[in-house]
Amino acid sequence: MASHQDGYATGRLRREQILTAATELFARVGYRHATVLELAQAAGISRTGLLHHFGSKEALLEAVLQRRDAEDGARFASAQADQTGVAALTALIDLARYNVSQPHLVALFAVLSAEAAAGEHPARDYFIERYRRTVEGARRSLLRAREAGVLAADIDPEQQAHAIVALMDGLQVQWLLDPALDMAGAIRSHLQRLLTVPLPR
Amino acid sequence: MASHQDGYATGRLRREQILTAATELFARVGYRHATVLELAQAAGISRTGLLHHFGSKEALLEAVLQRRDAEDGARFASAQADQTGVAALTALIDLARYNVSQPHLVALFAVLSAEAAAGEHPARDYFIERYRRTVEGARRSLLRAREAGVLAADIDPEQQAHAIVALMDGLQVQWLLDPALDMAGAIRSHLQRLLTVPLPR
Repeated sequence: MASHQDGYATGRLRREQILTAATELFARVGYRHATVLELAQAAGISRTGLLHHFGSKEALLEAVLQRRDAEDGARFASAQADQTGVAALTALIDLARYNVSQPHLVALFAVLSAEAAAGEHPARDYFIERYRRTVEGARRSLLRAREAGVLAADIDPEQQAHAIVALMDGLQVQWLLDPALDMAGAIRSHLQRLLTVPLPR
Repeated sequence: MASHQDGYATGRLRREQILTAATELFARVGYRHATVLELAQAAGISRTGLLHHFGSKEALLEAVLQRRDAEDGARFASAQADQTGVAALTALIDLARYNVSQPHLVALFAVLSAEAAAGEHPARDYFIERYRRTVEGARRSLLRAREAGVLAADIDPEQQAHAIVALMDGLQVQWLLDPALDMAGAIRSHLQRLLTVPLPR
């Protein structure tokens, strides 16, 4: 048996393993169809063991989503320092590029957001809030770009913020069906047409 | 009991009722989670009765998708006569407007396309082909617009065709979560910025 200190580290590692396995399984079969037993088996752990770490399937889903959001949050934090909004918009292109290495996560969000949008779903409030936050972030970047004088004249920041987020979501589904699609390139072209200055790189 | 002629009309009506109920149930719980028994109950018919009309859940799904495609196809047929591509692009705005009256169908396509994109799924090939066709239609309209001299100079028809379809898909998920979102308005703004002529209305 491990010492208490080892036990703590082992517990954290096990937690991460469960989250990774759950991300993959939720993505593959959807939230509703994945059972706690299947989730446990995918993580190589007993049903009781899984419920010890995450009290319920709902709690596990929430932890999966929060891990992804924490990663994304870190990605955007530094870009927020740029007052022209261009760095934050550029970070969206970087995110699309990163997502190419994370097909399971991309699939998970595509399936869960659609399931949650389609009706009653434990993650419905989460996605309503997530879209509010994501669209608001894009809107703020566009407003900053306008204040800095680098936004094209005919852009409505509110409407365009929804469009940018929609474009990214929609491209993900097409990319999952055809990995040859250049998501980052399509997003870059779209953002470039909104700005009067060249995007970096 | 009905006469044979009545029986034929009744059978067609029953078929439509099953398709409508299946559209709603697939949209609400996803394809994988809906059982044949639940689908039958939703249509107010026995399991055997449902399987008499549609041999399997897969066959029922295919019929649901084909009914939608037939409706959409009729919508775009007349727009194809316009050699500038503008009518076909305008038809996309009309489609978004129509979709507002069809939340179950919108939800069904959002859930199924995401499920199919996420991995093995009986509708995966259907969606690969459907996106190929939809993107090709948008690309053709943009090429026509370019030939007619009404496409903005910096537009890549291939990339933009993917973007238009992605934008429409992504807006649908946001709209399902927040019905106040003006999908048609956002699509109209996007398309208008691609063209050097004003869109009708």
